[in-house]
Amino acid sequence: MNDDCLFCRIAQRRLPAEIVAEDDDVLAFKDVNPQAPTHLLVIPKSHIARLSDLTPETARVVGQTVLMANRLAQQSGIAEPGYRLVMNCGPQAGQSVWHLHLHLLGGRPMKWPPG
Amino acid sequence: MNDDCLFCRIAQRRLPAEIVAEDDDVLAFKDVNPQAPTHLLVIPKSHIARLSDLTPETARVVGQTVLMANRLAQQSGIAEPGYRLVMNCGPQAGQSVWHLHLHLLGGRPMKWPPG
Repeated sequence: MNDDCLFCRIAQRRLPAEIVAEDDDVLAFKDVNPQAPTHLLVIPKSHIARLSDLTPETARVVGQTVLMANRLAQQSGIAEPGYRLVMNCGPQAGQSVWHLHLHLLGGRPMKWPPG
Repeated sequence: MNDDCLFCRIAQRRLPAEIVAEDDDVLAFKDVNPQAPTHLLVIPKSHIARLSDLTPETARVVGQTVLMANRLAQQSGIAEPGYRLVMNCGPQAGQSVWHLHLHLLGGRPMKWPPG
């Protein structure tokens, strides 16, 4: 945990968020600036600042965030029509919070290119 | 392997592709319709049709594709400026090949929303 990190503070319940799901390792909550009818963030509870900081030892958490996103897509009714998962790494990608997070977007047709 | 699957055929070298990296489990090649200066696809070699088909037993491969994408971002010189990873599931997300694949995009500022 990193006391200066917005998402660590959400995971610790020290900042409010609309949390929609949680297990021992990952947490999901609504994006405060949604870009689609369903727009959730899924994060590892442990502090990993950037996607590029993942190691063979920690990369397992990516699969866990994707499995959580899949469950939430199912619950939201967007699994069959479809959904997009996005991870940004670094400033040119638009990463704005330095804690690894997976965007789950759906509920509308998604365009191409993806930004 | 699925004989009718485009990406299985690429993995088997039965269809041409500009392959840029490979290990025992995953394969990376250039997208034939690139949407950014760097636009690569990273796929598991095993046939998984949809993201939503992942199970706790097979989800590990997502971490492997992300680690491969991280290495390729480093090699392409886009790791520091930044890169975006995208996975589409289903028609509304624009999934067009029914074999799980991770898009790695970078080399230009990426816009928001992501499509």
